Parts: sequence; structure tokens; C-alpha cells
Amino acid sequence: MKHFTNQEIQELSKYYRANLINSITGYKPANLIGTISETGETNLAVFSSVVHLGANPALIGMIVRPASVPRHTYENILATGYYTINHIHESFVEKAHFTSANFDRSDSEFDTCKLQAQYIDDFKAPFVQESQVKMGMKFLQEIPIEINGTILIIGQIEHLILLGEIIGEDGNVDLEAVESICVSGLESYSKVGKLAKFEYARVKNVPDFEY
Amino acid sequence: MKHFTNQEIQELSKYYRANLINSITGYKPANLIGTISETGETNLAVFSSVVHLGANPALIGMIVRPASVPRHTYENILATGYYTINHIHESFVEKAHFTSANFDRSDSEFDTCKLQAQYIDDFKAPFVQESQVKMGMKFLQEIPIEINGTILIIGQIEHLILLGEIIGEDGNVDLEAVESICVSGLESYSKVGKLAKFEYARVKNVPDFEY
Repeated sequence: MKHFTNQEIQELSKYYRANLINSITGYKPANLIGTISETGETNLAVFSSVVHLGANPALIGMIVRPASVPRHTYENILATGYYTINHIHESFVEKAHFTSANFDRSDSEFDTCKLQAQYIDDFKAPFVQESQVKMGMKFLQEIPIEINGTILIIGQIEHLILLGEIIGEDGNVDLEAVESICVSGLESYSKVGKLAKFEYARVKNVPDFEY
Repeated sequence: MKHFTNQEIQELSKYYRANLINSITGYKPANLIGTISETGETNLAVFSSVVHLGANPALIGMIVRPASVPRHTYENILATGYYTINHIHESFVEKAHFTSANFDRSDSEFDTCKLQAQYIDDFKAPFVQESQVKMGMKFLQEIPIEINGTILIIGQIEHLILLGEIIGEDGNVDLEAVESICVSGLESYSKVGKLAKFEYARVKNVPDFEY
């Protein structure tokens, strides 16, 4: 096994370290965040830091790093109070990846990467038409993570829109059926297949495992 | 497409809502968190909320919900200041799942689920011997998320231990080679295969996409 201490991680080249440390938390969800500025300029950006916070109320977090990357998504969320989270599927993974290029604010990634903006009811922020699982989010709170200048954005689900056929009787969603993907590191995308579904873990049901 | 408003989500049954809302953020990383109490009782628990916070310094976050589930992991982290993050692989996914059963504090999940505790150097918290990608974490900070009583735990990587062969020349880690898995919803686990790796997204390299 290869062993890096904290000191050795600090001494790695910036590029190598970024790839390594972005790889080792495991697979990450692949989502596009859709926003609009107060003057009507839309923005779309790939994020791998979306995290479930709670089901009741239905809250989702995501980490933004306003100091190191263009702030369009973050600024639009603060300015309008709304954003969308849209699953990335195999069919448009390359388009989704290139939304992370450093486009001018006046160039919408919907246009440059040829993904269709979709407006639902009177919700302000644009959804991704091509996405089969998407959420309209109301911004609730930002929590600064002072230790490295990142920010936890917390939002509440106002609209949840997904293909009806993929919702199971128990509420579980079959993400494999719509070929949602996941991210490894910064630039690698992976497809996903079912492995196992287990019953709710209770002490009396624990199998008789062996080493 | 099926459309749930916030109001309709609130009116769902608790079980259905938990499954649905835990499914829709996309695939989640599958990790085991290893801890030890001040009196030497080890604990192991599956978490799907691990999130990359930054590479320099190398920081990782995770969400804990001390109000709703047993607090052993959280209490041990606060008491000792150390914990481990260990990838779950296909070979021990069922053992990993059942660590979430509500065992007594005196029953270590290492024993009940037959995973081997491993101690590295003089690091306090136990690693999972069977895991091929694992981190020894130093607890830095907890940030309360008052809106729903969850907590963001922030830690710094003190030791990063992984199979040397899976580290690419650029620092990217081949998680598929060690069959790391991901989580969907609360009880479903998925296997992962390579889909695509793209170059760093620059405006001048954006392909000529079509709708």
C-alpha cells in the first residue's frame, strides 16, 4: 500500500494533489446547477458536491468555492434566491463537462454546450430539459467554511420533477434506468449498474458473517 | 414527468419520502467511518454523506445527524479527535450495510460484521483492513446546520493509504480497479464502470455540439 502523510500531501505538485485528493472521497454525484441573473442571463455549471441534508424538510446542500472559480452560479443564487439541480445522464455527459469552461458571463452554457433551458410553472431558474431527474431549489442559507473559504449552500426542494416510471412503490428511484452517472476525480465520469439492495439493517437480521 | 411540489413532498408518508428524497441527489460515495471511544470501544458505521471540501489543505466534510440516529460515531470523533474514512468495495458491501444496525455501544461493528480493525502507526482510530483506499482524519471543526439539526464535520487528512497501482501518473485514482461502489437511496448499492475522461474544460476546446 502507498502511504502519504499530511506533510507528503502538502509537498505534492498542485496538479497531482488536486487529482489525488479529488479522487479519494469516492464516487460523487454528477449534477448541473441552473441559475439566472437578475438581468436574465442564464448559467449552467457542473457540480459534484451536492449532498443530502434531510428528507423532512427536504433539504439539499452543496459546496461552492467562490474564491477559486467564477462566481456566476453563486452570485445568481444569492441575487435571485433560486436554482435548479439536474441529473447528468450518459447521453449528455460531454456537454455537461464542458459547462465548466470559463465562459464570459454573457455566454450562457445552455447555448455554448447546446443544452435546452426549460422553465416550469413560474419558477425563476432554468431547468435542463434533457435531464430526467431535476429539482427546483429555494435558497435558504449559506454557511461559510472559514477554514478554506468554501461555502455550504443550503436549499429546500420546491419542485421535484422526474420520470414517473422510475419511482418504485417504496419511493426509491431507479437511477440506473435513466443512466444517471457519477464523477471520479475532476474529469472522469462513470456509469453505474445495480449491485445489491438489502433490507433495513436490524440487529436481529444481521447475517452470520465470517472473516 | 411526475411533479411533486414542496407541499406534496411534505404530505408523503415518512417511509416513502425518506426513500424518495434520499434517492434524488444522485449517486453517493460509500464509506465506512471508523472510530474508537476513550475507553477503547471501536465503532464502524456506513456513511454516504462524505464530501470533498478542498485539496490544499486536504479537507473532507461529512454530515452527521446526532438527533435521529445513535451517536457513537459523532461522540467518538469529538472525544478522541480522530476517525478514519474507508472505501467500501463490492467484496464486503453486505457487511458494510449491516454496520448500520442499532448495535449496543459495547458491540463493535468490526466484530458483529466481521471486518478487521487495522491500526497504522500510532494513529488512534481503527482503519478497515479490507479497504483499499482509506484515510486517517484529524477532526478540525463541527458546524451546526441549525435548520434541521444536522452537523457538518470537517476533518483534515493525516494519513492517506491506498493501493499504489491504482494511482495514475497525474494523481487520478482508478476506483474501478478496486471495485469501490456507490449508494443510491438508503439501501441500494451500485457498481461502477468507466464511461469517459475528458480534457480540462477550456473555452477554446469546447466541441462543436448540436442540440
